[in-house]
Parts: sequence; structure tokens; C-alpha cells
Amino acid sequence: MANYTQRIKLLKTKLQRDGLDALLISKRENIIYLTGLDIESSSIIITSGRKDIIITDARFAEEASEKKGHFEIALTNGSRYKIINRLLKKRRIKKLGFESNWLVYNNFLHLVKELRRITLVPKKYLVEDLRMVKDTDEISLLKRSVSILNKAFSRAKKRIAPGMTGADMAIYLDNLMRRFGAGGPAFETIVAQNPQSSRPHAKATAAPFRRGSAILMDMGACYERYNSDLTRLLFLGRIPTKFKYVYNIIKTAQKKAIEAIRPGTRISELDKMARNYITRKGFGRYFLHSLGHGVGLEIHESPSISRKNSERLKPGMVFTVEPGIYIKGWGGLRIEDMVLVTEDGYEVLTDAIPK
Amino acid sequence: MANYTQRIKLLKTKLQRDGLDALLISKRENIIYLTGLDIESSSIIITSGRKDIIITDARFAEEASEKKGHFEIALTNGSRYKIINRLLKKRRIKKLGFESNWLVYNNFLHLVKELRRITLVPKKYLVEDLRMVKDTDEISLLKRSVSILNKAFSRAKKRIAPGMTGADMAIYLDNLMRRFGAGGPAFETIVAQNPQSSRPHAKATAAPFRRGSAILMDMGACYERYNSDLTRLLFLGRIPTKFKYVYNIIKTAQKKAIEAIRPGTRISELDKMARNYITRKGFGRYFLHSLGHGVGLEIHESPSISRKNSERLKPGMVFTVEPGIYIKGWGGLRIEDMVLVTEDGYEVLTDAIPK
Repeated sequence: MANYTQRIKLLKTKLQRDGLDALLISKRENIIYLTGLDIESSSIIITSGRKDIIITDARFAEEASEKKGHFEIALTNGSRYKIINRLLKKRRIKKLGFESNWLVYNNFLHLVKELRRITLVPKKYLVEDLRMVKDTDEISLLKRSVSILNKAFSRAKKRIAPGMTGADMAIYLDNLMRRFGAGGPAFETIVAQNPQSSRPHAKATAAPFRRGSAILMDMGACYERYNSDLTRLLFLGRIPTKFKYVYNIIKTAQKKAIEAIRPGTRISELDKMARNYITRKGFGRYFLHSLGHGVGLEIHESPSISRKNSERLKPGMVFTVEPGIYIKGWGGLRIEDMVLVTEDGYEVLTDAIPK
Repeated sequence: MANYTQRIKLLKTKLQRDGLDALLISKRENIIYLTGLDIESSSIIITSGRKDIIITDARFAEEASEKKGHFEIALTNGSRYKIINRLLKKRRIKKLGFESNWLVYNNFLHLVKELRRITLVPKKYLVEDLRMVKDTDEISLLKRSVSILNKAFSRAKKRIAPGMTGADMAIYLDNLMRRFGAGGPAFETIVAQNPQSSRPHAKATAAPFRRGSAILMDMGACYERYNSDLTRLLFLGRIPTKFKYVYNIIKTAQKKAIEAIRPGTRISELDKMARNYITRKGFGRYFLHSLGHGVGLEIHESPSISRKNSERLKPGMVFTVEPGIYIKGWGGLRIEDMVLVTEDGYEVLTDAIPK
């Protein structure tokens, strides 16, 4: 059982620091993070001092009622904004933050219209910033998610053979993940053979595997809503020289970036470390994306591991490191691991899974 | 191959009618609908007269390049809004519509900041309104999606027996759908036994089925991105009298609503038809949601079949009709079918699947 009280307490501290009376939260993953409830079309209001509120509808009344001790439950039957206004007035809330990276334009207009006497303050990634640093509950769930993925991939790769298709392989792997305890795959499993693999987001296709080809598998498990993410390359038969050459470049690039991981390092440095190496080797223009992304309740979340992110690493951050080289007409190679920032360095969560 | 040219043409007519020079579209399903491209973090601009534009990044350059004949392709490397501004100026676009039901507050601010000399016009559900009336390509895909679901459910229900769990059943069904050609399930399959089924969105659980219980299965297939959606009830052993009694109420309520379907009928009438009947029978307060929802590229899309929707039915609309009665501590019963509005009435797409 996750420590929701602690998470909410941290958020309340942030609200006080920012001079907000409350924050309106409607993003599903943020609600799950703070309450454990997976409720659609709902919102919660976390206040800086007063009792917090869940606003949902009759479909989720039973789930929400389990939270009665900690939250006031308000059931809507139509527009939530009138009800939100009433609840906020009752609590004398004057300054309300809202998720400016999530609330759509129309709903912002509803807020403006209904909450006439309340100051609305756009707040970007306030809960996401908390979620960026994983607590111990989350780290165990992520490790469990990785261990399911590991078991499934180890089993699945033994089955790979010429004639099998990417789609077959994806189904086989997804079933193994579920058999080993995952709710399902974290995203649509990618099993791409060269040359199709030159598209970083190629899907699993019905083309049978050929001897001598390179197969890229990008896969993840979802365990209790926590995702894992991993890319491995498999070669059928002898590895052609050019694959081996390019493979070693991305492997070294990945190693350089991972070895730079420790609290305090600028995130942009990691991307530069890998990208500069790949560029020196002459493949810079084929590295088509940033180095990685955070992983947690969302498969892509903060921090973004890109050249533009000047934030510094903190213990508890979990993200992917995934350099890749994609050449149209030839194919794409990528290696991806999930790394946890520790107090004095890093732990590669997917290390048990051989490259 | 869907008729993207025709869909774009219809949208251009709407833009001209609304006096817009162009519409900025970033919602994924809307981009798929208009181009067939499934590209993340991308946008397209459909103009009222000039050449249309795809704005994406290097990851999707290869996919996008297939559309070169019909679109200008702009690759971004960071913020799209500066590039959008340049492209619009080049085309002398003065009035730009944006998806006000989709664009988040922060991105709206970016638009305001970068597009200084362009008038921004919020447009709600412009593409979604087109998507609400399915064309013949879409109707075939939806029928195919239903037929896969039908095959999978017919096979799966034979396997149901005391001792099996909801989670087992969900996995078995999902695999059958994939075996019969689906990309995967349309949503997380619900297999809920009473009394847990009193939560309309109960998940599949590890509790073994008991003899004499009612099992609610809510499931859908996703075929070429088109979803199907169906709820059936299965009884293990003799059907207890109260289940039979309540079941007949929702069955009759559903029948009444479906028989009222024809072009021109107000959508609110359908919900009222079912709800009034259930209310007369004394169960009104246990019908916790609206009667149904549109189904297509999204599993929940327009039209919403609710009391508040005063729009009129049009041929080509596809939606669910799913009355339900949920009693805490006892259980929930729901029947759900997908219906197509025809020129002179309706066609129940899921009719081959016995209730």
C-alpha cells in the first residue's frame, strides 16, 4: 500500500510555498499517484490546509467512498465546475492552481466562467515534479515490473527463429508478461526487422523473420500501473559486420551516458555524452530522438533526457537511456535500459537482461 | 484504403463555412482520421484552400514522407510553434482555428505568443463532428471489429466454469481476439462477478467464479484502430429469480431505446426512453450512467447518448446502447450493443451475439 498521506503532505508543502490555497487535479495518473483511485472524468482538489475533495460521478461512487476518511466526496451529474465553485467558496479558497500542462482550453474557460471570485494560477507539472522522484514503494513496483519483463523476454527470445513473424512474437511476449503477473504490456510491443526498423516507432508486422537479419524488440510490462521499458536487438545467424560496427557504437555511447549518472549531473550532459560520441563516429544525423525519458505511472514522463533539459539528476529518478541509429533503407539499431539514480551513482534496473 | 481526400474535402468545406483560413489539429485520432498517419507529438494544418501541412519530428519523418504528394512536411526539433508561425505567414493565413477541446492551456499560450499576427479561433469538436458520421470504409472496419469480437466471445463463453477467474477469462478472450485478427483489446476487458459487478467499471479480478453467480463481461476488439464494444451477462447454473427479474427490465429498456432509433430522433429521447422505463420499474436510481456513447477510432467518442444531448440522429452514426442497474452489495447487470443508424432506422451491429 503506497504512502498516499506522505505524497499529499509533500504536495501541500509545495502549495504553501507557492502561496496557493488549493490545486485542482484532473490528470488521471496524478489522481492515481495521490489517492490510488483510477477514476475517469474526475478531479481532486488538494488544499494547502483544509480537507481535500474528490469530485467524481455515480459510476465511481463506490470506489471513491473508500476514501471518505481523508476526502470529502462530491458526486457530479453533469458539469463539475459549478460544484467545484461551491466547494471552494465553502472553504474560502481564494487562489486555486490548475494543471496548465493538462487542462484543455475549453475547461479553462469553464473555470474562468464559474469561479468568478477565485484567482486561477497556472501550474505546470507540479504533481509530475513530485512523481519524477520515485519513493520506495514506487521503486519496488518498478523493479517488479522489470523483473516480469526480464522473465518474459528471456523466455521469448529462445523461441525466435526464421519464419516466425514480428506479430507472433509480440503476442507471445505479451502473454508471457501477463502469465508472469503483469496487467498487460506497457505499450504496443515493437518487433521490427531491418530495414523496417529504421522507423524508431515501427510496429510489429506480419513479415516473417529472415536469417541474417537484425530484430529490434522494444517492450515493457505494466505491473500495478508501473511501467517498464527495454529495447534489445537479436540477430538471426551470423551478425553482419556493419551491424556489429554500428551496434558497438551505440553500446559505447550508452555506456558513456550511464557512467555519468549521479546526483547533481545536468540531465543535458547525459544526452550530449552519448550524442557527441555517436557524432564523432559519423552517425550523428541518424540519432533521431533524445536519449531517454522518465518511466513510472506513465511510460513517457518527466524527466526528459534531452539536450535541452538543464535540470540536475536527483536520487530516485528513473529513466531510460536509449541511443539509436536509424538509416532509411538499411535498418535501425537501439539499445535501451532503465536506470535508477541512487544516492551516489546509479543502478541499471534492467541489467539482468543481457544485451 | 480509406478516402482521406474526401474527409479532408469535407473539413475544408466546414472551414470555408466558418470563415477560417486553416485549422491546427493535434489530437492523434483526428490526425489518423484525416491522413492515416499515427504519429505522436505531431500536428497537421488543414487549410481552406492552400496546400496542407504535416508538422512532426525526425522519428516520424519516414512515415510522413509517404504523404509528400498531398502535404508539405515540416520537421521540428523542439518547439513546433515557431515553425507553425513561419508556415502560416508564408501562406498568408490570418484566421486559424484550433481544437479547443484538445489543446492544453500551456500550448494555447505558446500559440498566442508565437502567432502574434494571426487571429486564433477556438473550435470545439470540428473533426470529431465529421467522425461522428461514419463513412462506408469506417462502417466496414467497425463491422469487422465486431465480427472478430463475436467469434472470440462465442468461443470464450464455452470455456466459462466455476473455479475459473475473471483475470483468466480476460486473458483468454484477449488472445482469441488477437488470434482472430484484432490488434488487441479495445480497452481493459471487464469480467466481473456479483457483487463486485456493482461498480460499472469493475476490473477483471482473481476471484474464482462461483456457481449461481452472474458474470458481467464488457469487452471490445480493436481492428485497424476501429473499436467494438459489447457487454453480455453469463449465469453459472440456475438463474436466481432476482437476477432474471432485473435482467428483463434492462433488456426491455434496451429494446425500447433501440426501436426508437431512426434519423431525426433526438438523442436525448433514447436515454429517456430507457431511463423512464427503468424508473417506472423502481430502479431509476441504480442506473448510474448515460445510455451509451459513440464508438469509432476512440472507444468513447461523440455522440454521447445522454439526456442532455439534444442533437438529432443521422445515418452513419454508430453508438452503444447499454442500460444497467447496479446495486451495491448485490451486483450489477448491464447489456450493451452497438447500433448503426441507417437511412430509415437502425442496424444492431452486435446482433449476431446472443444476449
